[in-house]
Amino acid sequence: MNSKENNYLQDIKWDEQGLVTAIAQDISSKSVLMVAWMNREALELTVNEQRAIYWSRSRQKIWRKGEESGHVQKLHNIYLDCDGDVLLLEVEQIGGIACHTGRKSCFFRELKDGHWDTVTPVLKDPDQIYKNPKK
Amino acid sequence: MNSKENNYLQDIKWDEQGLVTAIAQDISSKSVLMVAWMNREALELTVNEQRAIYWSRSRQKIWRKGEESGHVQKLHNIYLDCDGDVLLLEVEQIGGIACHTGRKSCFFRELKDGHWDTVTPVLKDPDQIYKNPKK
Repeated sequence: MNSKENNYLQDIKWDEQGLVTAIAQDISSKSVLMVAWMNREALELTVNEQRAIYWSRSRQKIWRKGEESGHVQKLHNIYLDCDGDVLLLEVEQIGGIACHTGRKSCFFRELKDGHWDTVTPVLKDPDQIYKNPKK
Repeated sequence: MNSKENNYLQDIKWDEQGLVTAIAQDISSKSVLMVAWMNREALELTVNEQRAIYWSRSRQKIWRKGEESGHVQKLHNIYLDCDGDVLLLEVEQIGGIACHTGRKSCFFRELKDGHWDTVTPVLKDPDQIYKNPKK
């Protein structure tokens, strides 16, 4: 660390892969939209660019949320939990769709009578969101 | 798996330690209260007893949230995300305090000008909550 601005990175308890869990919450509806991961670079980019930028574990690269779909998450606030190992981002979800399935939130399955029921609708077909649909 | 009731456990992507991330959200205020972990037993207990029961990674045992503090989380709904690796619990937070520091939420530090500012007050001194305060 060589700048005062980066001190906040030191207070985070990065895991053995250098990652921290990040929750995105809609600042208006307060819905929990999704959970992803950040490394130091992703968090710094998020702070600097004021939009959610994650680390994709599957693709092993920086993931600028909305880069393909346009469903950018504009950053409002970031909180750190008492253990220092989870971040909570309050965001404005552009397009009202956070999930790659075309739903507003990734938490669209609810436990009912011993199984997961899909309880929220697809707002936009993923074929129309992505050039290469992630089904 | 030997009962229909346990089918929902199979849809979860348990990590290599047999755990899944669990977010607790207040069903009234919609505040994100805390993040913890569950193993299969913890989730089954949660569903059966209709209160949040986690797996404590530090103590390596079942953690009945509120067992010492009285700050039980009454379960209302459970959601699973699209990847199947994060649970979202909507709960009623008894006592209005989820954090071991005596605050309503564990996310009480906000990033401001490059450092984490404590932005929510202690509602009850941990010395008064716990017999053996966890500072």
